[in-house]
Amino acid sequence: MFGPLFRRGFAGGLLLSAAGVVGLRWLLQHQSDRDFGCGVNSILRKGIVFTRVDPLAQFGFPDLGPPVRWYSKHAVGWNPELRIPSWVAEHITKTSLHGPGERSKAWFRMDPAIPQSLSASDGDYKHSAWIRGHLVPVEDNKVSQQAMDEAFLYSNIIPQDKTNAEGIWRSLEDYCRELTERFRYVWVVSGPLFRPTEGTQRSIKYQIIGDAGVAVPTHLYKVVVAQGSSEQRPALAAFVIPNSPIEADWSLHSFQTELIEVERTAGLTFFPRLARVGVHAPQDLCAVDVCETQAFVDKWAKERRKMRAQG
Amino acid sequence: MFGPLFRRGFAGGLLLSAAGVVGLRWLLQHQSDRDFGCGVNSILRKGIVFTRVDPLAQFGFPDLGPPVRWYSKHAVGWNPELRIPSWVAEHITKTSLHGPGERSKAWFRMDPAIPQSLSASDGDYKHSAWIRGHLVPVEDNKVSQQAMDEAFLYSNIIPQDKTNAEGIWRSLEDYCRELTERFRYVWVVSGPLFRPTEGTQRSIKYQIIGDAGVAVPTHLYKVVVAQGSSEQRPALAAFVIPNSPIEADWSLHSFQTELIEVERTAGLTFFPRLARVGVHAPQDLCAVDVCETQAFVDKWAKERRKMRAQG
Repeated sequence: MFGPLFRRGFAGGLLLSAAGVVGLRWLLQHQSDRDFGCGVNSILRKGIVFTRVDPLAQFGFPDLGPPVRWYSKHAVGWNPELRIPSWVAEHITKTSLHGPGERSKAWFRMDPAIPQSLSASDGDYKHSAWIRGHLVPVEDNKVSQQAMDEAFLYSNIIPQDKTNAEGIWRSLEDYCRELTERFRYVWVVSGPLFRPTEGTQRSIKYQIIGDAGVAVPTHLYKVVVAQGSSEQRPALAAFVIPNSPIEADWSLHSFQTELIEVERTAGLTFFPRLARVGVHAPQDLCAVDVCETQAFVDKWAKERRKMRAQG
Repeated sequence: MFGPLFRRGFAGGLLLSAAGVVGLRWLLQHQSDRDFGCGVNSILRKGIVFTRVDPLAQFGFPDLGPPVRWYSKHAVGWNPELRIPSWVAEHITKTSLHGPGERSKAWFRMDPAIPQSLSASDGDYKHSAWIRGHLVPVEDNKVSQQAMDEAFLYSNIIPQDKTNAEGIWRSLEDYCRELTERFRYVWVVSGPLFRPTEGTQRSIKYQIIGDAGVAVPTHLYKVVVAQGSSEQRPALAAFVIPNSPIEADWSLHSFQTELIEVERTAGLTFFPRLARVGVHAPQDLCAVDVCETQAFVDKWAKERRKMRAQG
């Protein structure tokens, strides 16, 4: 059925394409190598991968682990030097907040994906003045027991003031969940900040706890993006809250901070694929929404009514 | 010349291989995506790339820049939060230390590859008590004027004590260069450390200088790997030196530190492709070499002779 001419043609086509594969593979490798920074160039030849290493990168470059760790309901950027996350990202919608995940079935655990010597553990928090604060809130990870369990990994935990965690920070978390009532999509990135003390000699000082030397952040941040539909212009707000005893009766709005200010302190670029200028640039969330929890709004409405009644 | 059978065969071969390309491309994309952490899955179909974005990663994850920046003679891991490098890696040999690069033609410059708002600049060091210390030494980058110029980029600079830079740190740099006389290949990774103060409440405190808030490290480290030939077992030593006025007449050996100790403080894994256990694990450099500069050895030999003559 297939004559020698067909076979020769077939072989010719195969050869030409094989060259294309080698070229493409080399190109992809070559392109991605410099990005990965591993200094390895691989060339596929006759099905064998030949590896050429830059002498500078012979034994590899200092490694601080992957930039992004994915979990079922959130993603984490881990800071191995400080033994806490640099950021934790989540995406919530009205429906994604509900599910069978139970808090009572979950417990704090070391993240098996993080080297033990660069991670916090139960012992580090014992006899310390700080509680184990969740960056992605437990209430946001009810979608499955796995997601709930992952919220309790130390890759999601920072040393936090107890009053703060149950007060103003809890309010900010409530507000993010309430946003899903008014916006179809909500993204929240939460993390620690280390702000300088002002004075003649400026310095940064933070406590460390436990054998691992877990860093206690001076402040916490949340950067929130909300979008009504995928066609609508997104709205953004950044909040910075001191890691100190602040009750829930404070206005969230008063903690709003310029995004660039948070980026400068954290050394991060948030939502790098979000337009910063032009017609697609985000609106100020606090200009299009209340930036206060319903509980806070109700409380002040009641106060005002009382004041009006009195006089 | 080419009959219809050949053409048909050619087309068949081309098609089969094209499928291979698509498969390979998809595989490569799919594999590398989670590593890059950008949450984008690209699928090549009929020559068009279809992109599927995980809703969590819709606007991208917080970005702290590339893990490795390559220059002609060295590589840098930049810490955007602290405005200094986390590490600078170099590879030196006896011959690579010489070339036409002139120090007098180079000057301190901001690295164009680093966002200005997350970089140090001339102004930050003015009126500060700290000098601009090179992590990869100027003397190691003579190979070309470009390499010399790149040693003066702020991506290679940390705030350093002047006496230290001209004293003990300079000795350590000299020692690394002297190693190339005895070992064919030498790798050096240098960087800053932030060590805790001990006390009832442990904390980390460091000064910051300038408008950018450039962090002043409490200590500096060098991790050195030397190898006689590519077949020989490498030798390794790690040194940690306080960023304070320490003259050159101190013994380098006394600053030797366990590698694991430096890794724990820095949150980094050095030379990840170097075997840690077994027959290929590195020897202790200070057991197979002097770990002192020739000048230090000569000075102490002279002292000993003097003492012997006196006594």
